[in-house]
Amino acid sequence: MARSRLTPQRESELYQAVIDLLGEVGYDGLTMDAIAARSHSSKATLYRQWGSKPELVAQSLRHHEPVRIAEIDTGTLRGDFHEMVARTDDCRMEKDSAMMRGLAHAIGDNPELLQALRELLIEPEVTGLGQVLRRAVERGEVAADNPALDLVPHMMIGAVVARPLIEDRPVDQAYLMTYVDAVVLPALGV
Amino acid sequence: MARSRLTPQRESELYQAVIDLLGEVGYDGLTMDAIAARSHSSKATLYRQWGSKPELVAQSLRHHEPVRIAEIDTGTLRGDFHEMVARTDDCRMEKDSAMMRGLAHAIGDNPELLQALRELLIEPEVTGLGQVLRRAVERGEVAADNPALDLVPHMMIGAVVARPLIEDRPVDQAYLMTYVDAVVLPALGV
Repeated sequence: MARSRLTPQRESELYQAVIDLLGEVGYDGLTMDAIAARSHSSKATLYRQWGSKPELVAQSLRHHEPVRIAEIDTGTLRGDFHEMVARTDDCRMEKDSAMMRGLAHAIGDNPELLQALRELLIEPEVTGLGQVLRRAVERGEVAADNPALDLVPHMMIGAVVARPLIEDRPVDQAYLMTYVDAVVLPALGV
Repeated sequence: MARSRLTPQRESELYQAVIDLLGEVGYDGLTMDAIAARSHSSKATLYRQWGSKPELVAQSLRHHEPVRIAEIDTGTLRGDFHEMVARTDDCRMEKDSAMMRGLAHAIGDNPELLQALRELLIEPEVTGLGQVLRRAVERGEVAADNPALDLVPHMMIGAVVARPLIEDRPVDQAYLMTYVDAVVLPALGV
């Protein structure tokens, strides 16, 4: 599909506007009008270039680059997890968490959207965690048959989603560091 | 407020209809029309007895009884967790999880609704878990200063919310049992 009508920078601003609006009004409340207004584009441009709201949202998720976990390699598992948390600033964490809440219901009836969320945000995280953990197993830090190995993505994503439900506080680095030290590493026997 | 116009059984059916619809269409998509149709009530009755959608949803959550965790006391922490999971059947887990997704975005802009969700579903769970854990500390199964003690609600609620995001499978008892044995108990040093 030709995307030549917007410069890469304008395209990038537009995708960010979609991610921000998802966090503010949720998927159901997200309108092409609101996206056009926030990104100073015309609705005609949006429809011409992306065809539909689900496509535009999926493309915005694709553009929303996850933290590159797999390249983190400090030499210890504790160091790798701490570096992972340190690379995600608190503001980004709050925006991502708002966006996830905004998508939470919509993915129930848009299999296409759940698929996009999985491929673009969750699978890279699962794959990256898998590489960090594989290296820890190779170094002998974690037993290869430790049953918690497959559940690390559930622990990490669960920690992010659960906190705003339980406490009246957003997720931040201090909380995630505590969670890594108190839950993730002990479960892995480190 | 007088609630005399519906029998307790009709009221109970109506609350269940609200919970089911929340899971199916989400909070934003939930209309008084749909609730009236599903529960075979008139909209006039709904408005007369509950005033507004947020009030009716909060009241339905209040009626949606959580598993009574605090009364579980098998004599070991592992036994208590397994009993907790065993008391929540898979169908109930799937409905609760759909309802949580349906509420996820709405609680972002309805502080009243988040408050209701916290008081009615989350706090009883946190309190119940606290009592189960306190007994484990008293028995000497868990060190009183274990830093994972405060994070058990985050682990459990996170496990429930994270699975459908990561895997193409709903939460079930087998998954939760594995999670308890591989993550929760090792983090607590059991």
